[in-house]
Amino acid sequence: MASVGRVTPQTMHFDEPLPLRSGASLPSYSLVYETYGRLNAERSNAVLVCHALNASHHVAGVDERGATGWWDNLVGPGKPLDTERFFVIGVNNPGSCFGSTGPTHLNPATGKAWGADFPVVTVEDWVDAQVRLVERLGIPKLAAVLGGSLGGMQALSWAMRHPERLEHCIAVATAPNLSAQNIAFNEVARRAIVTDPDFHGGHFYEHGVVPKRGLRVARMIGHITYLSDDAMEAKFGRELRAAELGYSTQEIEFQIESYLRHQGDKFSAYFDANTYLLITRALDYFDPAREHGGKLAAAFAPARDKRFLVVSFTTDWRFSPARSREIVKALVDNRIAVSYAEIAAPHGHDAFLLEDPRYHQAMRAYFETVAARVGAVKTEAAHV
Amino acid sequence: MASVGRVTPQTMHFDEPLPLRSGASLPSYSLVYETYGRLNAERSNAVLVCHALNASHHVAGVDERGATGWWDNLVGPGKPLDTERFFVIGVNNPGSCFGSTGPTHLNPATGKAWGADFPVVTVEDWVDAQVRLVERLGIPKLAAVLGGSLGGMQALSWAMRHPERLEHCIAVATAPNLSAQNIAFNEVARRAIVTDPDFHGGHFYEHGVVPKRGLRVARMIGHITYLSDDAMEAKFGRELRAAELGYSTQEIEFQIESYLRHQGDKFSAYFDANTYLLITRALDYFDPAREHGGKLAAAFAPARDKRFLVVSFTTDWRFSPARSREIVKALVDNRIAVSYAEIAAPHGHDAFLLEDPRYHQAMRAYFETVAARVGAVKTEAAHV
Repeated sequence: MASVGRVTPQTMHFDEPLPLRSGASLPSYSLVYETYGRLNAERSNAVLVCHALNASHHVAGVDERGATGWWDNLVGPGKPLDTERFFVIGVNNPGSCFGSTGPTHLNPATGKAWGADFPVVTVEDWVDAQVRLVERLGIPKLAAVLGGSLGGMQALSWAMRHPERLEHCIAVATAPNLSAQNIAFNEVARRAIVTDPDFHGGHFYEHGVVPKRGLRVARMIGHITYLSDDAMEAKFGRELRAAELGYSTQEIEFQIESYLRHQGDKFSAYFDANTYLLITRALDYFDPAREHGGKLAAAFAPARDKRFLVVSFTTDWRFSPARSREIVKALVDNRIAVSYAEIAAPHGHDAFLLEDPRYHQAMRAYFETVAARVGAVKTEAAHV
Repeated sequence: MASVGRVTPQTMHFDEPLPLRSGASLPSYSLVYETYGRLNAERSNAVLVCHALNASHHVAGVDERGATGWWDNLVGPGKPLDTERFFVIGVNNPGSCFGSTGPTHLNPATGKAWGADFPVVTVEDWVDAQVRLVERLGIPKLAAVLGGSLGGMQALSWAMRHPERLEHCIAVATAPNLSAQNIAFNEVARRAIVTDPDFHGGHFYEHGVVPKRGLRVARMIGHITYLSDDAMEAKFGRELRAAELGYSTQEIEFQIESYLRHQGDKFSAYFDANTYLLITRALDYFDPAREHGGKLAAAFAPARDKRFLVVSFTTDWRFSPARSREIVKALVDNRIAVSYAEIAAPHGHDAFLLEDPRYHQAMRAYFETVAARVGAVKTEAAHV
């Protein structure tokens, strides 16, 4: 299938401060975004894609650095989210390190990098920022908001906070909040980062260093939780790197060690430590049921006339199917239209990014109904 | 039930070098051990208890510092492993930091602490060192060798390597080798330690520092894997430390964070970083099937006339019941007498240290048959 081809990110600046859930506000900010396909005359075919921890606005196509978008297998001409029918928007969230205003940018109050002083942002804050972008793009109502993992939380939050601005919510491999174990893994990753002497309390930019040690460990922990036990066993098992054991506590013996170290090294070379803290905290804080006395169904009440697709993967132990079923139950309790697909896939949490036929067929079928409902008609224009 | 009371560790020195699996050898070494109960006249009632990662020879009773033994709920007068019938030995392994020769001790070749130069020790090496201790104690054959987790691996290794020296093998919450995911968690913990600038390549003693940051992170990771997801949820859930959210990436918000940090701090104050590396590596390396072309049954062939008890816990995701069943299958394939108890317990891997009634009943029943078989008769002497 074709790709959306070469894409160029755009930037939208917002002078109006963004009020945040913490009580603070972001004085002014820019959002970087990409779009694929064409907005139809009725402005009814727009789909917003929300990103997870290590992702950005660059959802599909190939950017100026030759990098392919993180959900390119899903989004493009003829793909499940078909850019010949839909106008797709990928947006980078504030606090990120991929272009939108974040900790590496200048704090207007000090003239120095925000660093650890960047305000704590939540899923709700991101959604509110995205609403402004969608408004500026002249879209009164989105055909759908779609996201996986932390992106799925944003999609759910859209439906709860701004139900008048979307028709469909598609939440993949996500949860209504983090479990204690989820928070625990986040906390270990954060401790690894903030106790790295190169972190300097989050103001490492001024010291010309990067807390790479902490970032590496954080990423290694993350990777373990993205893969299923079985997938890791199938891919690496106890395979040795050399023919013989070397009997060393510090050298690599097993292929899984080599893989994890490589992932850690790669990540620490580009990801911002303060962004890691902010994004894991946004995950921890997301808990829409809290302000309704723990009743998730009450949180979904404003979304009564919306339609949902919830997707989970059998081997995802980070956000297990049981967590998705909590969402489905809360929707059903509200008599909200919800389709639920529990996909038998071996890859763990990572499955939501992979091209599994049953998963993609479920997504394709759902987007076909979305297209029919919002009048998203196939055009030739998006062919590359 | 009574305790074995006040106990005093003893030390046995060995001048004969211990050949190691790596090809190196430990030139001379001391083992610290404790004993509970009395060796009978036939010397047939001795049970050796092998320890796991964060444990020692101090299995039962109260030591000179007032600390209760790590398996005191299981071992004592009238307890499942009844010290009125059995003579129980707890031994600290070489490479540990609880008394037996380890990285904090002097390397005779340099006159400095061994540090990272302490030879890499394996489960098999520990077992061979324990055999010498048991010989010196004048015990021709153990009634049983018992261990949980890494201790269970030692019990299995005893049965394979020295079947003539034991009658029963009791392996609790263990596995025939580590999975890729198990190794992955160990590797992250090790990277956290060795990349701590205070580690100094393992020679931090000379620098008067301790890689506490790395040890903390290592311990936090470990703790997550010891508890079941459900147990963590039941104990902490999303409970906040304060009444209100503080919106901070570095301060504690959730009780689970507070708990993990506390565990990490405590551990880093007493545990040796080089020992952590050595013990996690011993876990990684254990794989008795490897030298038999991956056939675990072949590895157990020498233990044909031994008797086994294998115990697992339903919510243990570190060493799941499936891994215990691999052991059971390999034993059954050899027509070896094996009892298997899969205990429904909510606590995860930690369950093997806890006082679960069904678990302790299974242990008690098994030790009663062991006692009958080896002629371990109840005495009054051990009452305290």
